Amino acid sequence: MSRDTIVVALGGNALLRRSDPMTVSAQRSNVRIAARALAPICEEHNLVLAHGNGPQVGLLALQAAAYAEVEPYPLDVLGAQTEGMIGYMIEQELGNLVPFERQIATVLTMVEVDPNDPAFDNPTKFVGPQYEPEDAERVASEKGWVFKLDHDKPRRVVASPEPKQIFELEPIRWLIEKGTIVICAGGGGIPTAYLPDGTRTLVGSECVIDKDLAAELLAKNLNADLFIMATDADGVYLDWDTPEQRLLERATPDELRTHEFAAGSMGPKVAAAIRFVEATGKRAAIGSLEDIERIVAGEAGTSIVPSCDT
Amino acid sequence: MSRDTIVVALGGNALLRRSDPMTVSAQRSNVRIAARALAPICEEHNLVLAHGNGPQVGLLALQAAAYAEVEPYPLDVLGAQTEGMIGYMIEQELGNLVPFERQIATVLTMVEVDPNDPAFDNPTKFVGPQYEPEDAERVASEKGWVFKLDHDKPRRVVASPEPKQIFELEPIRWLIEKGTIVICAGGGGIPTAYLPDGTRTLVGSECVIDKDLAAELLAKNLNADLFIMATDADGVYLDWDTPEQRLLERATPDELRTHEFAAGSMGPKVAAAIRFVEATGKRAAIGSLEDIERIVAGEAGTSIVPSCDT
Repeated sequence: MSRDTIVVALGGNALLRRSDPMTVSAQRSNVRIAARALAPICEEHNLVLAHGNGPQVGLLALQAAAYAEVEPYPLDVLGAQTEGMIGYMIEQELGNLVPFERQIATVLTMVEVDPNDPAFDNPTKFVGPQYEPEDAERVASEKGWVFKLDHDKPRRVVASPEPKQIFELEPIRWLIEKGTIVICAGGGGIPTAYLPDGTRTLVGSECVIDKDLAAELLAKNLNADLFIMATDADGVYLDWDTPEQRLLERATPDELRTHEFAAGSMGPKVAAAIRFVEATGKRAAIGSLEDIERIVAGEAGTSIVPSCDT
Repeated sequence: MSRDTIVVALGGNALLRRSDPMTVSAQRSNVRIAARALAPICEEHNLVLAHGNGPQVGLLALQAAAYAEVEPYPLDVLGAQTEGMIGYMIEQELGNLVPFERQIATVLTMVEVDPNDPAFDNPTKFVGPQYEPEDAERVASEKGWVFKLDHDKPRRVVASPEPKQIFELEPIRWLIEKGTIVICAGGGGIPTAYLPDGTRTLVGSECVIDKDLAAELLAKNLNADLFIMATDADGVYLDWDTPEQRLLERATPDELRTHEFAAGSMGPKVAAAIRFVEATGKRAAIGSLEDIERIVAGEAGTSIVPSCDT
């Protein structure tokens, strides 16, 4: 196939907003909106779609906690469940919009992390529900979970280590070569790590992987022509939340490094964009899902480009 | 690739027996046993692995019911979750046993059913927990669910219609051509149906699909060389549970039709085997997972062969 390959990382909140009830119908209607935005891109490009899973993992954790008769499932297994659930909805809704002949496949994705990643010493990602302080203390001592205050109440935090390797890379590549639309690396991939015993035995890892960094690794390894992070903001802003705030339309990695961005939101996206552009010499972009056709055309969002292009 | 292609349908109870606690560790240890049995087959054959999901869907239904704040998820979505969860465990455990270079991919699988399938008029498959009679009555009127007695208590029953089409067939075929071990059609596939409005809009269907019939459709469409249903019995028995009971080592479809088999257990497997053999002229086999290498060699289990072979 001579089509360009575009990797799109879709924010978890684009699929289920924090204000939405966590019902299937709310998820469906958001997925349908996303599919409508994405379908036109499939006409002239290979599309590889990664997505977040934060709200969905939270729901499964709530359900599992409510059914006390079985130990809550670990984060690798919950992540695998959300890859199935979200991947299915996206595949079905997108499939209803693209020509029937166009193949779509959702490929379960395991991602390797390093058990010695410094992130494990400082867990930062909230998962699951808020707890009452006394419950949090009990659960912390029973399970060794770490809690931090989320607003006024304790909530579990887990590490978010660097993605090192995508195990299903070759199958994903083969499918793209056949023109298949591939949905993969959901939720940043299922976190896995090798046991330290030298046997190359892979096991689940109790952490979460940033979906933008995982999608960047995917885009880089696939040698994608364009890497887009689709979110609810229309691009990267400078001096955000001040009278001088303005959209950055185009920047090089060096220019981006002269600014600071919020650790929880734009920071990881900017970091992922810089990595991709510097590794591949191709364009990355950050912008709103609804603008995605114009982002592909370079007419909306923030484009991050190699130095020589500016 | 010139390797033979073998489709194996793995019983849900082979992965989580009814007597097991529904914990991740119980599932893991069963999956590990299955992976050990299957790994040697991968050396000289292409392996396509389908699997059941009955106990796992039951667990997710229990968890969802326990968390009353969100409407329980429908069976298509729960099925997608189990394809993620079980597929992940199998892929990881099998990956730990086959050479690192051997690619493995779990492909989410949607299967079409006909909304006019007569099975919808007579739901027969139990899903989820037993209810107290008064709760069952209330839920039945609220949600339109059908209940039947399972032993002494009401339990939800759903239809099990015929699988008509596997949507991801081409991607699965392309991966096999590259020698990838493919895990797919988990739980008989995610049940889906076209809306009756002629728009070719695919939606989820509130039913379950027999995993042996779905695996048979997969094996037939892939033109597999051998279709194995691996279960906890060592083959098909005649006069089961009588003093004359004996293992049937080899039979043609016509011979099998002269006997009756239990509707809930061996019946669907025998029906699936007959379909496969008559459609392809290749061999089908039913037997124990632990004997699978010998089943491949035709030295264990029950082989169902075309008439001209006997």
